[in-house]
Amino acid sequence: MAKPLNIGVIGCGFMGRTHSNGFLQAPKFFDLPYRPVLKKICARNADRAKSFAANWGYEGFETDWRKLVASPEVDLIDIASPNDTHREIAIAAAQAGKMVMCEKPLGRNAEESEAMVKAVESARVRNMVWYNYRRVPAVTLAKQLIDAGRLGRIFHYRTVFLQDWTISADLPQGGEGLWRLDADVAGSGVTGDLLAHNIDTALWLNGPIEEVSAMTETFIKARKHNLTGKEQPVRIDDASAFLARFRNGSLATFEATRYARGHKALYTFEINGENASIAWDLHDLHRLEYFDHRDEGRLRGWRSVHITDGDHPYMKQWWVPGLQIGYEHTFIHQVADFITALGEGKDAAPTFRDALATDYVIEAVLKSAANRNWAKVREEA
Amino acid sequence: MAKPLNIGVIGCGFMGRTHSNGFLQAPKFFDLPYRPVLKKICARNADRAKSFAANWGYEGFETDWRKLVASPEVDLIDIASPNDTHREIAIAAAQAGKMVMCEKPLGRNAEESEAMVKAVESARVRNMVWYNYRRVPAVTLAKQLIDAGRLGRIFHYRTVFLQDWTISADLPQGGEGLWRLDADVAGSGVTGDLLAHNIDTALWLNGPIEEVSAMTETFIKARKHNLTGKEQPVRIDDASAFLARFRNGSLATFEATRYARGHKALYTFEINGENASIAWDLHDLHRLEYFDHRDEGRLRGWRSVHITDGDHPYMKQWWVPGLQIGYEHTFIHQVADFITALGEGKDAAPTFRDALATDYVIEAVLKSAANRNWAKVREEA
Amino acid sequence: MAKPLNIGVIGCGFMGRTHSNGFLQAPKFFDLPYRPVLKKICARNADRAKSFAANWGYEGFETDWRKLVASPEVDLIDIASPNDTHREIAIAAAQAGKMVMCEKPLGRNAEESEAMVKAVESARVRNMVWYNYRRVPAVTLAKQLIDAGRLGRIFHYRTVFLQDWTISADLPQGGEGLWRLDADVAGSGVTGDLLAHNIDTALWLNGPIEEVSAMTETFIKARKHNLTGKEQPVRIDDASAFLARFRNGSLATFEATRYARGHKALYTFEINGENASIAWDLHDLHRLEYFDHRDEGRLRGWRSVHITDGDHPYMKQWWVPGLQIGYEHTFIHQVADFITALGEGKDAAPTFRDALATDYVIEAVLKSAANRNWAKVREEA
Amino acid sequence: MAKPLNIGVIGCGFMGRTHSNGFLQAPKFFDLPYRPVLKKICARNADRAKSFAANWGYEGFETDWRKLVASPEVDLIDIASPNDTHREIAIAAAQAGKMVMCEKPLGRNAEESEAMVKAVESARVRNMVWYNYRRVPAVTLAKQLIDAGRLGRIFHYRTVFLQDWTISADLPQGGEGLWRLDADVAGSGVTGDLLAHNIDTALWLNGPIEEVSAMTETFIKARKHNLTGKEQPVRIDDASAFLARFRNGSLATFEATRYARGHKALYTFEINGENASIAWDLHDLHRLEYFDHRDEGRLRGWRSVHITDGDHPYMKQWWVPGLQIGYEHTFIHQVADFITALGEGKDAAPTFRDALATDYVIEAVLKSAANRNWAKVREEA
Repeated sequence: MAKPLNIGVIGCGFMGRTHSNGFLQAPKFFDLPYRPVLKKICARNADRAKSFAANWGYEGFETDWRKLVASPEVDLIDIASPNDTHREIAIAAAQAGKMVMCEKPLGRNAEESEAMVKAVESARVRNMVWYNYRRVPAVTLAKQLIDAGRLGRIFHYRTVFLQDWTISADLPQGGEGLWRLDADVAGSGVTGDLLAHNIDTALWLNGPIEEVSAMTETFIKARKHNLTGKEQPVRIDDASAFLARFRNGSLATFEATRYARGHKALYTFEINGENASIAWDLHDLHRLEYFDHRDEGRLRGWRSVHITDGDHPYMKQWWVPGLQIGYEHTFIHQVADFITALGEGKDAAPTFRDALATDYVIEAVLKSAANRNWAKVREEA
Repeated sequence: MAKPLNIGVIGCGFMGRTHSNGFLQAPKFFDLPYRPVLKKICARNADRAKSFAANWGYEGFETDWRKLVASPEVDLIDIASPNDTHREIAIAAAQAGKMVMCEKPLGRNAEESEAMVKAVESARVRNMVWYNYRRVPAVTLAKQLIDAGRLGRIFHYRTVFLQDWTISADLPQGGEGLWRLDADVAGSGVTGDLLAHNIDTALWLNGPIEEVSAMTETFIKARKHNLTGKEQPVRIDDASAFLARFRNGSLATFEATRYARGHKALYTFEINGENASIAWDLHDLHRLEYFDHRDEGRLRGWRSVHITDGDHPYMKQWWVPGLQIGYEHTFIHQVADFITALGEGKDAAPTFRDALATDYVIEAVLKSAANRNWAKVREEA
Repeated sequence: MAKPLNIGVIGCGFMGRTHSNGFLQAPKFFDLPYRPVLKKICARNADRAKSFAANWGYEGFETDWRKLVASPEVDLIDIASPNDTHREIAIAAAQAGKMVMCEKPLGRNAEESEAMVKAVESARVRNMVWYNYRRVPAVTLAKQLIDAGRLGRIFHYRTVFLQDWTISADLPQGGEGLWRLDADVAGSGVTGDLLAHNIDTALWLNGPIEEVSAMTETFIKARKHNLTGKEQPVRIDDASAFLARFRNGSLATFEATRYARGHKALYTFEINGENASIAWDLHDLHRLEYFDHRDEGRLRGWRSVHITDGDHPYMKQWWVPGLQIGYEHTFIHQVADFITALGEGKDAAPTFRDALATDYVIEAVLKSAANRNWAKVREEA
Repeated sequence: MAKPLNIGVIGCGFMGRTHSNGFLQAPKFFDLPYRPVLKKICARNADRAKSFAANWGYEGFETDWRKLVASPEVDLIDIASPNDTHREIAIAAAQAGKMVMCEKPLGRNAEESEAMVKAVESARVRNMVWYNYRRVPAVTLAKQLIDAGRLGRIFHYRTVFLQDWTISADLPQGGEGLWRLDADVAGSGVTGDLLAHNIDTALWLNGPIEEVSAMTETFIKARKHNLTGKEQPVRIDDASAFLARFRNGSLATFEATRYARGHKALYTFEINGENASIAWDLHDLHRLEYFDHRDEGRLRGWRSVHITDGDHPYMKQWWVPGLQIGYEHTFIHQVADFITALGEGKDAAPTFRDALATDYVIEAVLKSAANRNWAKVREEA
């Protein structure tokens, strides 16, 4: 019987659910050296915490995260609360010697993230950031193909994350479920919320970005604030786009927005190599589009690969060919990989340090947009 | 706190997993009047049963289904074992006063199914058959649109279920994981295994079928039998296709095969009505294709609807727009609907009686194929 | 300079246009041994014939096809008039020693077609039927792949031709532009108009059909007749579907209808072989979908091949890769192939005799539908 | 009978063919006030000119464009020769009082283009530039929808033009068929060749661009020159991408490359408005993707509109619904529109002046890429 890994989760919103489900499902589908035990959920509102605990089978709940962090019952602190809480909790947890998992983005800015990296590395605790899309089987397969050299020299990378849920000017900013529109809480708008995913995947698949030229825009200049009840200036970026040059010589375009009518969460990327190209989109996440120039000339075409076979990443653990999995499975895979690595005495990517690289790109993007020029991306110390 | 509903599951193969997962996940995402408790799993092999029980959190296990059926601890018997066991277990369970859920097809033939219907109806126990594809949100939405009259008079129905996993002549028949190729165990080949799904959905969406003209084929005439080790004639149908006339005057084509190279589990249907048409396929199960002739003429086109919004069936309980669910969720929905109906003192469809209608169509299909003529579908008594 | 080939075209409706364009465009894009000269167009209405002649550059016009057939100026008679005129004109043209090209279907029934075959073969005149879809580059490529054995043993063929233009009960039957709804003129409904295409392609790609089981339906039982002004029974089939067995052992489903809401001219086919599969549809005629099981397992997928490269059939003569051609080009290709074959002293397929095979299948389909049983397809004498 | 419009075409390469075909086909499908007469083709090589003239039915040929421009037989000079010849020919033709049609881009740079605009405006001769993609029916429909206000406020525009034909380092630069790789002849690389199309369409659909931030790249630094036989530095841009801000407040990304493996000529654009969005791509040019937020919520989806109906732009002149046209038709439409406008005493867009606006954007793009900062787009004087 696998040993218990006692988990304390902070935050019972959308991400509290995906993480809890991840911890519960992972051991049912993957053979793991540790068995996650949902010890405690923590939320400021006691009723909500209690109800969440009952629903997901937590043994108990807290309303003060400091108590949870201090609890000897818990091995691992999982941060699923809004961005403005990440730094403080993560540092405290590391200092308490707990493993730390943290929702993305790591901090609200690179300074916060640096402090967090320093904390987990000083404390030598296992740590990971929930850039869950790396664990979409099709995305993982893309990584394997690139690492195996199947694409050859890379020329182009293009990626977008398109949503349309904030187009209405009547949508308020701030407060429950809307903190992503509040710059104080979120740090930035779509750059940190959406482009962070694009950047994390891009760095993983295509290596470091050297410099960027960006523009951002806030289309609706003022919105009623849900907490104050007053109309206030909107300080987040509604849309963000940038040109980039990777260290490997390839060129890229990145774009994210919440004003692309018709798209719910259309995260896509395409990589063009000398010999082959790959494309993927979140709206059909179980498919990988693959083009191989080495195919016979008159029969070359983009292959739509249905990533549901036993020889596709992670899929042997699920159902049978043709039967797709969905969004929540990316979190399950991340738990499985984290625990597997833990058993092997290794880190599972992306660590806090890996995630810091994304924050440096975000920093350069926001600086470039503000200064209207190309900005170098800071290199990790 | 919801009252417990004590479950005993028989069979720990592929369907044992989907059902177990369904029972565990349903109460986490749906607000239900009963809480399923995984009391016992039953499998002939004790090691396998024990390991399955540990994995899924069953309180115990059995190796003799009769003991499970007789156990006072259990309220509901769920049959996830091969087709040749359905009848006997279901009847015994009903006679023991248990609720019964049964994998599809109900029996190996209409006679078996009739006996099963009789048993559950005599015993007045709740019963349901796992025709899970009704609970794909896109399929449920199709049903709602049809019921609301959005399509108008129906002219055509066309549906296929295409696989390619038995093309190799080296694939043996019979035994673990391959009982679907053994006519004694399965009853029939693709007709009962695959077309059963097509028929169940069709009857649900488009009403009764009156008559059929069918053909079946066995492409590989003999295969080694896994249990006997000998080459034996293959007695299942590898492919089955039929023409049909529905009571509502519409025409249909049905086809299933395990010899359609390039398709893993391509279950599709399309319905053409006077005013609108609907199409769906299992390989992208989170999408519904919809065409409405009442759209402005020059902008008419098939709409690819990404069924991930809060106003789509079942989806309010899951994530946010754009984030898809997968195959296993259909079982979770079925559990949720069964338990909800149970709380309301009602049956959830498809009941054994509903499933019998599918068996009558299968019976007519096999008879038509054998006799090379049109066959009437039996009406329920 | 290529020698002139003097053409007389009968009929200046839709097909008169596609043929005229074919004759004019072929020599501009293909290097041909004969140069088609548009000598005369023939139509009953003199004004219409005159105007058509002026538009397309015919040297003159006739209103009596017998005069055209008798004219020594003309080498080739092209029949683009309604079905009920095909037999008489074709026989007269053959007897006058002219080459004959004829719109499909050849006759209104197999008897008419047999007489036509007999006439051209007795007279030993070159002849061809305009089953134009064979010359879609993607379809021609499919043929080449099959002939090269790329698919291996064939298991399945499935094909539909779906339209929706006759759903309205207000649409009259008969008369200008609507003769396809008049059984006396057309011979049959969708069976001869649409399924004829599906059958011709199928016989070409997959060999002879041995037997069929069919059903037909007329959804709107009576329509106003445009010529008489009176409501009259509709005698054509609005929809037609059949099961078939090919001589090579493969199974097929065929379906055509003018009541499939949302489809304009969705002619599709798919062929499943042991090693590879092919799919195509007319709505995106410049693409061929190709699946090859010999591709590396985890990267297998349907390839969407954009048939616009120089090594694709016919495409070297057109533009550059990525730039698609359309519908009318199939007629241009047919002219080019006919004239090329003429220069080589050979027939270009499909000849009248080739087309007769399609009529035998149609005959069996209509007989099967009437008699409600399987019908053998007549073999050519 | 329509009056003759006597045409002299210069250049018998790829564009000579598309233009010649356009002139010949337009009057057969459109009712026009003038009938184009192919008077003379001009090419430096007499054999080639003669053969081209014979193929396309020109009455004669020239080898010196000055003679053609001077000829009283000709009403309109059409420039289909490489970019470095545009300016001189166009100015001479205008000064000779001829109408002038010119392949895109207008000049090799904005200075050349300004001189050309000045020449045709001073001479008051009709003029047009062959930005043919405006006349794809789906693109024209997009324009109509935007002009009708269907999209509402525009937030985003994104467009790419992706090819892969120059990836091989063995491909030489310069000379017959390869002058697009020679900076002296072409002016620039993909910016002028491909992005020019993206920009022209964007300005037409979405209004003026105010500023850009661009990057360009030359992946293969040196290639053998076909004319000199020597390896020489490549001076064109292989790839070009830029961010843009439109005057209407919308943001855009533009990208073109000849190094995107898997794409032949994938020209796409997408426009996101407050109420609706539109997307299109050249590889399936007969389709328009349309999303309308005003559709009923649970049935909202991107509509794939098959632009082949009689109420779609230009399509009434072609075949019947479902039957697609292709690339060359855009030139036919442009001829038809030019001649129709001529009959009405009006200009047809895009005129030289319209095309100059595109050159100003190109100028800003190249300047921005060189200077690594945002560049304002010059406004027309």
